[in-house]
Amino acid sequence: MGGSLALALKERHLCRQVTALVRRESAVQAALNLGAVDVATTDPAEAFTQANLIIFATPVRVLLQQLPQFAPFYPAGAIITDMGSTKQAIMQAMAALPPQVYPIGSHPMCGKETSGLEVAEATLYQNAPWILTPLDRTPLWVTTFMHEFALAIGAKPRQLDAARHDKLVATISHFPHTLSTALVLTAMQVAHHDPVVWNVAASGFRDTSRIAASDVTMMLDILLTNREAVLTVLGEFDRQLLALSQALADNDEDALRALMEQAAHQRRQLYR
Amino acid sequence: MGGSLALALKERHLCRQVTALVRRESAVQAALNLGAVDVATTDPAEAFTQANLIIFATPVRVLLQQLPQFAPFYPAGAIITDMGSTKQAIMQAMAALPPQVYPIGSHPMCGKETSGLEVAEATLYQNAPWILTPLDRTPLWVTTFMHEFALAIGAKPRQLDAARHDKLVATISHFPHTLSTALVLTAMQVAHHDPVVWNVAASGFRDTSRIAASDVTMMLDILLTNREAVLTVLGEFDRQLLALSQALADNDEDALRALMEQAAHQRRQLYR
Repeated sequence: MGGSLALALKERHLCRQVTALVRRESAVQAALNLGAVDVATTDPAEAFTQANLIIFATPVRVLLQQLPQFAPFYPAGAIITDMGSTKQAIMQAMAALPPQVYPIGSHPMCGKETSGLEVAEATLYQNAPWILTPLDRTPLWVTTFMHEFALAIGAKPRQLDAARHDKLVATISHFPHTLSTALVLTAMQVAHHDPVVWNVAASGFRDTSRIAASDVTMMLDILLTNREAVLTVLGEFDRQLLALSQALADNDEDALRALMEQAAHQRRQLYR
Repeated sequence: MGGSLALALKERHLCRQVTALVRRESAVQAALNLGAVDVATTDPAEAFTQANLIIFATPVRVLLQQLPQFAPFYPAGAIITDMGSTKQAIMQAMAALPPQVYPIGSHPMCGKETSGLEVAEATLYQNAPWILTPLDRTPLWVTTFMHEFALAIGAKPRQLDAARHDKLVATISHFPHTLSTALVLTAMQVAHHDPVVWNVAASGFRDTSRIAASDVTMMLDILLTNREAVLTVLGEFDRQLLALSQALADNDEDALRALMEQAAHQRRQLYR
């Protein structure tokens, strides 16, 4: 996601200079070859000097370590943001940064399941929601700047409180991944006794199980930094599933139809 | 599905005569206009006379009424089959048919979510699994005939016991629908307090929720005639979801990773 952002910034000539701070020496040349950056380095001192805007594109739990670790290198007055999928843990870490920098949380929602420089694409952020989560200490001009920044690369900025963000994405993104995983594990239990189950799988299973194939390390990062919100959604889901299964167990066609009609109507409204 | 089958039979010149028994007078002309049938009628006596093969394309619970209701019109020696998505209830009704006819269950799995003559297409059965569920009373030549029949329209025939069929499709098709419905109902609860949840929905939610938009009457028919199998899968799913949520609640990264890796690996194996 960092590579795609750098490409978008270069293509649209939005920065005086784009610098990549990479972890491995081998990535220096790869980043330069991609044409996405002007400078690439493994040295944080070199990378951060004179930076006006510092954007972390590392996984959430790596970021939680890096934010304080790189603090000595942040120039005074720099805006510091990220691209993490969960926000409360990150905002806590950002709140503890030295007072001379301006932290603000970002979550560009472009739904890419692959990662790495080799799959970078400049159009990734086109029309993607870009959630901004400012802290109380974030100056208004910084929030406005990031709003303009998101618009400039073609994304759709929207400001949300971090706790609210985490609850909403837990509902619509993180918990569905857990659900999809549990469904595949369930089918695996059945397949253990009767592998023919895979031969009768049709498009319904293909779609419902798709996100179970997401990158596990990335998803662990997300789930473990958004535990409470995911577990809260799980509680609500249990209630809904119980209502459906109770209606089915009771052979209560009217109750079952009412629940199914509500969900079908809502889903059709969302994706017309 | 009946219209698509008739089209495929006509196109491939597989029948001396294709006759449609329709419920409404208005459908007689529609069926003839489609070019899918030689004769269309609302009169069962006319439709069934001289039939060698009778294929019911009605919803499961309608079929359960029609199978005995039309019995007086079945010619001796006719093969009687269906296209229903659940098989145990149908096979029970078929077992009670008069001894001079040859019943066998069929479930062509073509995953179409729309129905009606206007969406009929001759290629619908191309490469679709066509499950056959013979009764003890079904002569071997009838099973062989239906096997050849499925191959002739381009489908992939497979024979399964009705109880086994119902368990497998409950796992891979019917229960995932319930899951998808419960997920949409869960998001609706969150949306009730914060409708912005719909604005942060990405491709993961779109795919996981897709089958919740399926035709409700058709799905009710399926769920209510496959209750026990669906409830059994639901029990297994509850165990899997509990294991995942327990690992998450305990912050047990190793356990969570192991479960997620298993599911991700299996899903990637299935759809390479």
